[in-house]
Amino acid sequence: MLSKNIKTVEVCFSPKLYEHRLTKDNFIVVIVDILRATTSICAAFDHGVEKIIPVAGIEKAREYKEKGYIVACERDGKVLDFADVGNSPSDFLNDVFRERTIAYSTTNGTKAINLASDADEIVIGSFTNLTAISEWVTEQDKNVVILCAAWKGLFNLEDSLFAGALSEKLLDTGHFETECDSVKAGLDLWSLAGEDLAGYLAKSSHRNRLKHLVSDEDFQYTVTLDSNRVIPRLESNYLINPATN
Amino acid sequence: MLSKNIKTVEVCFSPKLYEHRLTKDNFIVVIVDILRATTSICAAFDHGVEKIIPVAGIEKAREYKEKGYIVACERDGKVLDFADVGNSPSDFLNDVFRERTIAYSTTNGTKAINLASDADEIVIGSFTNLTAISEWVTEQDKNVVILCAAWKGLFNLEDSLFAGALSEKLLDTGHFETECDSVKAGLDLWSLAGEDLAGYLAKSSHRNRLKHLVSDEDFQYTVTLDSNRVIPRLESNYLINPATN
Repeated sequence: MLSKNIKTVEVCFSPKLYEHRLTKDNFIVVIVDILRATTSICAAFDHGVEKIIPVAGIEKAREYKEKGYIVACERDGKVLDFADVGNSPSDFLNDVFRERTIAYSTTNGTKAINLASDADEIVIGSFTNLTAISEWVTEQDKNVVILCAAWKGLFNLEDSLFAGALSEKLLDTGHFETECDSVKAGLDLWSLAGEDLAGYLAKSSHRNRLKHLVSDEDFQYTVTLDSNRVIPRLESNYLINPATN
Repeated sequence: MLSKNIKTVEVCFSPKLYEHRLTKDNFIVVIVDILRATTSICAAFDHGVEKIIPVAGIEKAREYKEKGYIVACERDGKVLDFADVGNSPSDFLNDVFRERTIAYSTTNGTKAINLASDADEIVIGSFTNLTAISEWVTEQDKNVVILCAAWKGLFNLEDSLFAGALSEKLLDTGHFETECDSVKAGLDLWSLAGEDLAGYLAKSSHRNRLKHLVSDEDFQYTVTLDSNRVIPRLESNYLINPATN
């Protein structure tokens, strides 16, 4: 049951802007790293993974391997020798890891999660769980900050478009309002891109740069809206999917 | 005479993103703080001011007053008691300060200028000198970084729209290319806003927040393209307008 209190929605286009945010209390952070961490994490939960431990960097990933965890870690498109699997969505579009715990290497994602430790809740968003996450967030009756993991600290189009798409869904409920220029920019960019997300992202420098790392299959999965309904949520230092936990 | 070397154009939506920029060498920084510093600085040079010293904060401004300078400094819409004039464009749309040097208080602008000290040149952009600055920058045959001064570190629409407008002019010359997602976002936002900039900015939170500080006259001046052809440029610690110096 929603209260009649209107909540706010705000977007940070980069972790570097998070400290300047207007929202300070009673808020959820939705972390976005469309290419590729948050899309892959949604894929993993949708295929029955039980827990995901976000891990920053190769050395940390190696430590988890030594502790006996399944480790997802690659660099330059290659699975590292000690790791079990890569970081792409397609690495998880099967039932191999059902009910298992995975240590997932994501430098940007881990940084964003650590940064947002002052939030009441941290959840993971991607185009694949857009509607599910917007519904879940609306039910919580809290303010929302959409935090783009960005690419080397820089604004990127794919995360910003997701921020626009989620902002639109939240504002359309009538339970949110905004004074954030980034939300307004995200909405406008989404209004231009939403009808042909794949085509629009073809002009994203990050997508171009990753072209040899992101297969066509992965890209198609990444830009397909609402293929799942997972709500990956941080609990202590790992992510769970409440629907299955 | 332009060389046939294609140069790059990049946008930083906030000073917080400047350190992550892709452009490292052989570049000009165009500083943008549409509401209000860079618009006011263009107005002042267009009305014959000889030099402008960008000054951060009230105490620094007071020191310049004690040294005998004309000082432009206000807070919360009021000219401070020790200052000679405020910070709005309309404070300079007259010939009172012709051939004078002004110490102009601008916290965000001064920060941006200090940050960009590694650039070959630092110039000042606003909608009022858009075409002049794009032509001047093109003639320099260097890479370009458009640095938005931002509002309390946050992305804002007015600076970002200017970044899009200037990027469009530069790319249209055929002498520039870009791999920067912020340029692409700026171009798209400008494609939506350019035909009715004033109307579009009515939805800018910063404009709304400053509504009691920015008069209708100032706002109209701010959003009018190409009312002057000044090229305010940093030399040592002050700005000059090469056309008149």
